[in-house]
Amino acid sequence: MSKILETINSPADVKNLTIAELTALAEEIRERLIVGVAKTGGHIGPNLGVVELTLAMHYVFDTPKDSFVFDVSHQAYVHKLLTGREKLFHTIRQPGGLNGFMLRTESQHDSYGAGHAGTALSAALGMAVARDLAGGSENIIALAGDAAFTNGISFEALNNIAAQTRRMIIVLNDNAWSIDKNVGAIAEYFHKVVTNQTVSSLHDKAAGLLEKFGGKAVRHVARKAEEAAKGLIGPGMLFEEFGLSYFGPIDGHNLPLLIETFKFLKTQNKPVILHAITQKGRGFQPAIEKQKKFHGLGPYDAETGETKSAGQKTYSEVFAESLTKLADSNEKVVAITAAMPNGTALDLFRPHHPTRYFDVGIAEEHAVIFAAGMATKGYKPFCAIYSTFLQRAFDPIVHDVCLQNLPVVFCMDRGGLSGDDGPTHHGLFDISYLRGVPNIIHMVPKDEDELADMMYTAMLHEGPSAIRYPRGTGPGVKLKDKLVALEIGKAEVVVDGHDIAIFGLGAMLPEAIRLAEMLRLEGFSTAVVNPRFAKPIDRACVADFGGRCRLLITLEDHVLAGGFGSAVLETLNSLDLQTPVVRIGWPDAFIEHGKVDFLRAKYGLTAEAALEKAKPHLARMMEQVLARHF
Amino acid sequence: MSKILETINSPADVKNLTIAELTALAEEIRERLIVGVAKTGGHIGPNLGVVELTLAMHYVFDTPKDSFVFDVSHQAYVHKLLTGREKLFHTIRQPGGLNGFMLRTESQHDSYGAGHAGTALSAALGMAVARDLAGGSENIIALAGDAAFTNGISFEALNNIAAQTRRMIIVLNDNAWSIDKNVGAIAEYFHKVVTNQTVSSLHDKAAGLLEKFGGKAVRHVARKAEEAAKGLIGPGMLFEEFGLSYFGPIDGHNLPLLIETFKFLKTQNKPVILHAITQKGRGFQPAIEKQKKFHGLGPYDAETGETKSAGQKTYSEVFAESLTKLADSNEKVVAITAAMPNGTALDLFRPHHPTRYFDVGIAEEHAVIFAAGMATKGYKPFCAIYSTFLQRAFDPIVHDVCLQNLPVVFCMDRGGLSGDDGPTHHGLFDISYLRGVPNIIHMVPKDEDELADMMYTAMLHEGPSAIRYPRGTGPGVKLKDKLVALEIGKAEVVVDGHDIAIFGLGAMLPEAIRLAEMLRLEGFSTAVVNPRFAKPIDRACVADFGGRCRLLITLEDHVLAGGFGSAVLETLNSLDLQTPVVRIGWPDAFIEHGKVDFLRAKYGLTAEAALEKAKPHLARMMEQVLARHF
Repeated sequence: MSKILETINSPADVKNLTIAELTALAEEIRERLIVGVAKTGGHIGPNLGVVELTLAMHYVFDTPKDSFVFDVSHQAYVHKLLTGREKLFHTIRQPGGLNGFMLRTESQHDSYGAGHAGTALSAALGMAVARDLAGGSENIIALAGDAAFTNGISFEALNNIAAQTRRMIIVLNDNAWSIDKNVGAIAEYFHKVVTNQTVSSLHDKAAGLLEKFGGKAVRHVARKAEEAAKGLIGPGMLFEEFGLSYFGPIDGHNLPLLIETFKFLKTQNKPVILHAITQKGRGFQPAIEKQKKFHGLGPYDAETGETKSAGQKTYSEVFAESLTKLADSNEKVVAITAAMPNGTALDLFRPHHPTRYFDVGIAEEHAVIFAAGMATKGYKPFCAIYSTFLQRAFDPIVHDVCLQNLPVVFCMDRGGLSGDDGPTHHGLFDISYLRGVPNIIHMVPKDEDELADMMYTAMLHEGPSAIRYPRGTGPGVKLKDKLVALEIGKAEVVVDGHDIAIFGLGAMLPEAIRLAEMLRLEGFSTAVVNPRFAKPIDRACVADFGGRCRLLITLEDHVLAGGFGSAVLETLNSLDLQTPVVRIGWPDAFIEHGKVDFLRAKYGLTAEAALEKAKPHLARMMEQVLARHF
Repeated sequence: MSKILETINSPADVKNLTIAELTALAEEIRERLIVGVAKTGGHIGPNLGVVELTLAMHYVFDTPKDSFVFDVSHQAYVHKLLTGREKLFHTIRQPGGLNGFMLRTESQHDSYGAGHAGTALSAALGMAVARDLAGGSENIIALAGDAAFTNGISFEALNNIAAQTRRMIIVLNDNAWSIDKNVGAIAEYFHKVVTNQTVSSLHDKAAGLLEKFGGKAVRHVARKAEEAAKGLIGPGMLFEEFGLSYFGPIDGHNLPLLIETFKFLKTQNKPVILHAITQKGRGFQPAIEKQKKFHGLGPYDAETGETKSAGQKTYSEVFAESLTKLADSNEKVVAITAAMPNGTALDLFRPHHPTRYFDVGIAEEHAVIFAAGMATKGYKPFCAIYSTFLQRAFDPIVHDVCLQNLPVVFCMDRGGLSGDDGPTHHGLFDISYLRGVPNIIHMVPKDEDELADMMYTAMLHEGPSAIRYPRGTGPGVKLKDKLVALEIGKAEVVVDGHDIAIFGLGAMLPEAIRLAEMLRLEGFSTAVVNPRFAKPIDRACVADFGGRCRLLITLEDHVLAGGFGSAVLETLNSLDLQTPVVRIGWPDAFIEHGKVDFLRAKYGLTAEAALEKAKPHLARMMEQVLARHF
């Protein structure tokens, strides 16, 4: 089946193929992607869309000497297959296997890692300028989807490119989708360019001429396109305004055309942008029909595209349903997503309140400031943004929301280890980056019902708040009929005890309960606390247990530096209590991709590991008990 | 002198004036600004540029019903003078006085606060959408400088505006400057628009027609401009591509023209952008001649514009000179600024190494990713970005620099309380937002010479690093001839002692030394430590003093939550040491503007306050001593 693919050990092998072989290889790669990702899960749709683009790039250019910078880099599977990782491809996104994104440590062909959108142009410009300074001649090629242009960083880069280098190639991989259908002026602009008559005819002409005349035709068409680009409503006017030379749009699945075009662009002494039209999911009917679903997903049936139904509702779904209910009874509630209606489940909210639903594109900073603007007019915006992506909006959170004390609610999906997506997607910093910011409340629910209550609490609260909840499903708790407003900064004592108190934050509460059982078997009276608030922390609760217990244990799905355990230490310190604390959380290192349970066990975020870490304290406590008794 | 201005108690009073009176009022305002800011210091240049714009806006619109959103809002002095704050204007930027920026808590006419660039369009769109949802009819007017369009957030907003509202007015206040001369494609684009022949003639025509025919002429010209905007290289094509209707460019100092234009724009049922050409510093020759200097500055002579020479070098100057020296001997050293060559003093570096100097515009995210790209090619980028502005790039720091462990150096000027500029400019969060991020080193120098050594250390270090240093001058230490590479994570023991150890981070070291003297007078042997590293903290040093002293005291010019003192607590915790710690730093609240010494005293960041806070511990320690002796 993969006769040719198996012979490709490096990009050099791609260069020896004929067009016919390349075309056959493209089909082999598609088959390999569809069957492989069916087992591992992953970003199947985007990768099926760039098979020919990636082949053509490796045919014409020469990594690692030349650098490919892929925006987000979830579309790098084909690149991985062609750069010596074919035999490891079955391990993608598996523990210890290949990462689902570009990773500099994984291959010398991965010149730049990513996972968040909009960085490719800036990074590639940095490389191009470095090459120019060093007097090098290598090529720098950035490949970015159309969705990347809804992100402001791409425009910051565009503003700089023409002024700073004369040699850089941008490939605009235009499939009209980000994860969901693109929105806004840029999407409309691209659509207008693509449907423009002149351009379409040029495009058809190119395909025809190529068959007859080969490379020369491309140059002819490229020149024509360039002229058209300077015309009235010609394509690429936007890019021309930024000083780039625009070429296209061309068919991103026409291998010979792509190869000739890249050969031509390689000779240009000016920054260029090639607009390639691709089809997301190409070659796999289920992925073409359900683009959203097949952007990135878990394992599926390689024939039908069927996935197993999760059955239990995810935290995201509980969030969306709860928000719908809140919006039913409060007309000031609005929902904002940054191009993630599916991931955040806000697509469940949208049909109920279409006028109060806003997808702003991959524009987290704008999302937050837009929310702040609405809040000044009495609205209560719920911004559903993954914890890791909200990092993008740290300054707007500080400067626009918290400083003005506006009632914006941040619903931080994927708070905690995200699992298979790896370090670019783990949400392990939100407590440390938000805890220093005045005015904000930071909540972490123990289960689905508490998430709903926290959203209700946030809705009633007259200042900024954030709620983090994990990826996937929770304990599966059924929601109460009536929402309860939680007391701000008040923890819940799950079980009382007087020797040891365990604070199990959010998703770590079950581990805290297991740990408590273990400690009770060892003879210690052990309390379990559901802290609910990482900020403000329940000072009275810490004072109470810190005063009467001889050991506190904190468990959090977050880095230890500056995290919840650190907040407990600060509170004890301000209370002048010297109670020993064992803190369990992620170490000061980027955590690789893998199954959550596997990684928790590996890095000591389990009841067993906590018990082990507590042992010296337990021994000392035992001695004290014995000393008292004998 | 200010006959008319004194009668303006609210914008309603502006509306009753004749054009002649308004023109006279503009001159009174200019005089008031020049003389007033001469005493207080402040953003004189930008405010002299918007006198007529602000007058016309208040003449036509109706705050607080209508909302003005000023980008950065350093150009809001005229607005403050017209909205009931004229009598308080002498207090601007003074302790307890008016803030130098818009502040929602200061006036109902300040609908939105700011201090960082690029937020106005997003915030205004949020307000416009909120108004639309609520069925309101008020006007939302965003005023943004041309420099705001070098920031990506403005483009994220542009991408959304046309799709989300049909009524919003953007005023592009184009003076071709940000704080320094603007750079990049957008600046060139605006220049091209302004110098376009058709447009210039239309513009001249408008002024002429207006004299003859009044308002009708404006409508005529506006229509013509609109037609031109749809022409070949007509002005505003860029904005038209984003779905906005473009009007202009017009003379931003022609009061009657501005008034008629705003009246016309008010009637439009589509989002519009008015391109107004203004002159920064207008009416004050020194400010016109030295735009950079007079963007924002301290007190000056109202006649000549002379300022007192600081004499002693600022930290920024020491940074720039040291970087120049590093670059002299290492060709891989490059300097990056986000539109702050003056503020960061990199304009001193530029002439020495013009090809290794990069001003990327107000684009902090791009700056950091661009730096990461350069670092992959073996360069050593020093990004000089104020602590508060680096908040903008938090995600690129995590995702592009630290995750890839690239050797980018963040030189965080204005780290700590910034003083007169107030809460939007204080740099009080950088330890808490960076300490959770793996791989980064966070350094804080005690003086100018140590800053140079830290820069040298960062240059040699093969991973990411950050150095924070305060605004203004330091202790005035002369630099050694030879740079010294510091041991990573190693503190400096300034004085040894065995009862108490004081950790005085960076600018707080002098207070630590003063405090030590006080404590010695009380009879305690007191050590003083210069921690140098907030991350990684010197574990051996904490272990040593935590083990043999009975009290540790930390002093930091940073919020307490998640700050340096918190790092000390975490370290003691991991060492299983229960030594009491008194932590001195900023409380969990936004700190107002004011003189640094005044605010330190107010919030307890002094040796005296630390002594007071330590008293219970001292009493206990004294008891223990007495118990031992008697």
